Amino acid sequence: MIVCKFGGTSVATADQIRKVVDIVTSDSNRKIVVVSAPGKRFSDDTKVTDLLIQLANKALANEDTEQALSAVVDRFRGISEELGLDGAIIEEIETDLRDRLAKDKVDTLLYMDRLKAAGEDNNAKMIAAYFQLLGMESHYVSPKEGGLLVSDRPERVRALPEGDERLAKLRDLPGIIVFPGFFGYTNDGTIRTFNRGGSDITGSIIAAATGAELYENFTDVDSVFAANPTVIENPVAIEKMTYREMRELAYAGFSVFHDEALIPAFLKSIPVCIKNTNNPSAPGTLIVKERDYNEQQVIGIAADSGFTTIYVDKYLMNLEIGFGRRLLQIFEEEEISYEHTPSGIDNLSIIIRTRYLPEEKEKKIVARIHQELEPDAVIVEHDYSMIVLVGEGMQYTTGLAARAASAIARTGCNIEMINQGSSEVSLVFGVKKNDETKILKELYKEFFVQSTVQL
Amino acid sequence: MIVCKFGGTSVATADQIRKVVDIVTSDSNRKIVVVSAPGKRFSDDTKVTDLLIQLANKALANEDTEQALSAVVDRFRGISEELGLDGAIIEEIETDLRDRLAKDKVDTLLYMDRLKAAGEDNNAKMIAAYFQLLGMESHYVSPKEGGLLVSDRPERVRALPEGDERLAKLRDLPGIIVFPGFFGYTNDGTIRTFNRGGSDITGSIIAAATGAELYENFTDVDSVFAANPTVIENPVAIEKMTYREMRELAYAGFSVFHDEALIPAFLKSIPVCIKNTNNPSAPGTLIVKERDYNEQQVIGIAADSGFTTIYVDKYLMNLEIGFGRRLLQIFEEEEISYEHTPSGIDNLSIIIRTRYLPEEKEKKIVARIHQELEPDAVIVEHDYSMIVLVGEGMQYTTGLAARAASAIARTGCNIEMINQGSSEVSLVFGVKKNDETKILKELYKEFFVQSTVQL
Repeated sequence: MIVCKFGGTSVATADQIRKVVDIVTSDSNRKIVVVSAPGKRFSDDTKVTDLLIQLANKALANEDTEQALSAVVDRFRGISEELGLDGAIIEEIETDLRDRLAKDKVDTLLYMDRLKAAGEDNNAKMIAAYFQLLGMESHYVSPKEGGLLVSDRPERVRALPEGDERLAKLRDLPGIIVFPGFFGYTNDGTIRTFNRGGSDITGSIIAAATGAELYENFTDVDSVFAANPTVIENPVAIEKMTYREMRELAYAGFSVFHDEALIPAFLKSIPVCIKNTNNPSAPGTLIVKERDYNEQQVIGIAADSGFTTIYVDKYLMNLEIGFGRRLLQIFEEEEISYEHTPSGIDNLSIIIRTRYLPEEKEKKIVARIHQELEPDAVIVEHDYSMIVLVGEGMQYTTGLAARAASAIARTGCNIEMINQGSSEVSLVFGVKKNDETKILKELYKEFFVQSTVQL
Repeated sequence: MIVCKFGGTSVATADQIRKVVDIVTSDSNRKIVVVSAPGKRFSDDTKVTDLLIQLANKALANEDTEQALSAVVDRFRGISEELGLDGAIIEEIETDLRDRLAKDKVDTLLYMDRLKAAGEDNNAKMIAAYFQLLGMESHYVSPKEGGLLVSDRPERVRALPEGDERLAKLRDLPGIIVFPGFFGYTNDGTIRTFNRGGSDITGSIIAAATGAELYENFTDVDSVFAANPTVIENPVAIEKMTYREMRELAYAGFSVFHDEALIPAFLKSIPVCIKNTNNPSAPGTLIVKERDYNEQQVIGIAADSGFTTIYVDKYLMNLEIGFGRRLLQIFEEEEISYEHTPSGIDNLSIIIRTRYLPEEKEKKIVARIHQELEPDAVIVEHDYSMIVLVGEGMQYTTGLAARAASAIARTGCNIEMINQGSSEVSLVFGVKKNDETKILKELYKEFFVQSTVQL
């Protein structure tokens, strides 16, 4: 049995939904279909979820909501009419939206969540109706009924394993199950959404709970590439990689698949396949637990700019038990999460994503370090990029670090930081932002262009 | 004005003390002489400090001390007779030792400190007497009188800056000042010793307090070498290096100069020269604040085995604010100091000196990590070596990391860890202990043998 999830662009128009139906019906193993809300039809278009946020904001500001409501209903109407559905589904969607709008506004987060979830929820109903129109048995199942239970923290919603037993029964329902992505219910029946892109998470939870043979994630790209196509012309496609490799690439800016969505699949070892709705015959990228790393030691190269380093130097630092812990505690108390903490003998650098470090926080943290730790020096550097070389072969292959460092040396750029730990699948280089593209190109040449020529 | 310190082997015999006198008198700037207790005369010999520890232990166990006392007095007598001093100095030394032995034993640490300090203290008196015998003005100054004030923590004695004003006056005293190393007094007059090798610290404190032009540290080697002479045949001598470079080399096993001894000199920018009592015309190694790193980018290579790594892996670790801090806190609470914490995206390794990690502590820490942090995996690896490439040129020179990694690749050995932070003067490679020597030799060849041939 296959769980397949279709993202926003895959369900943005009637034509796209017809492709979804073709894909689902072409393989009888495709049993559970998780859908996003209709996304963009063209680059300047507005996603239904964003229309719903505008609608909720108007309602919360007690402004007139009719126009904003029509914008949402019209998107669904356009699709449903083109699919040949009768007016009943649009009436049902409009009634549902008016119900949500009429709810109490005291808990604004809850009010917002309830409206945001309407995009996926109503889209799932509409797509189930379309399968039925085509003469297939198909059922919309709501997350409440299906058992998608989530934790009670509005800002950090996580799926609860208690729901798994009920979700597992989706497998036994007759026909094609259409399930809305993006939201679930707490134990007391309160609706909560995951963060943006959360439909990926819904699909992964269901695939894990039902013990699916495969979780297919349909997007609008043929595969995950070995490097960013906006920097490297025609990068090679990744055919197969491990969860860990995907995670490392995602960390450094590969945004094909939601970070958290990998967890449920990873925990139950469900293979994940990234595929293209617009080109379903392309093999896509398969994400699995293990692969033969001898075939391809390095799987991809990612780069992400926008890091800041805070370098702290104190003579005989490493004789002070607790120095590192106290330094990290300052960051924790200021609620700043950090990425890496490479250390020398008397120094420690904290590497942070600049967007998580507002200027006043930076000043406060530097002041606290001076006051509480009495270092010899604190140096802050902005415009730092991290280049991550990813591959399961990394830890077993002699000389990969040398090849990477030599490739960087050929560019004439300086390596500011190197980080490689034991048992790792990545090698991280800190470089100046200005050098990022040049280095990325040379590394790609070293690990992808040369090897295809030589082998 | 020069402060010079003579280590144990430099004052072990009458012949050696004659060399000390020759050195001191050959340059009238050599004004303050700090001395250790007499050290080993031959490889199986026992240092006076060790004889004193044996004596103190017998006294604390209420055993007969006469024989152990004689062993100490006889060492001094042998030297003083050969130097032609009269019997008065030996009487004075024996009386001093008997006074110390007769003190209260309730505070065993204090009792031990008092006896240990007798080696340096009496040696300083004897050497001052020898200068006088030769017709020179010379004075023994005790740390109490001189103002060497220390903190009150017996196990972690540190010099207090309050003493500096009095110490500065040593400069104005007439003649050659002979000052015992290794101990000082707290504000309430209690004697405390530094840890072993602490005479280096005494010399550095006095050099800093008096604003000496130079602090000469006389030992039994011509200079600091670029690599360990027991591994590399005839390594090149280091003529000049910075405090930071010395610190990094000392960290990884270069035991020429006491770690803490560099601090006072470093803070006041007093140049330190490591010289050989047995070959004083050799230029030695000069340690300064800055050097021209273009002349020699890499100054030395050190290696130290006996490390353990504890690798902790948890999916989405880097989204958990406080994970790193909580992990380090476990080590702090268990009083285990760590060396490095290289991190990947979902993993963190803690590198510890194995000798600081008893087996039961290791088990407890691993159990606590499992219980408190719920990681996916905790892997402990012993027999880890750290190879440190040191040089001020490191941070400015493109390609050094590539050359180092390529040299290691040539050995066929694997790099387990690489750590290089911003603004650093070192590059640290974690390797398997078995590979250490092979890698060290190849790195030496890369950075020292080739460059002397090519340039």
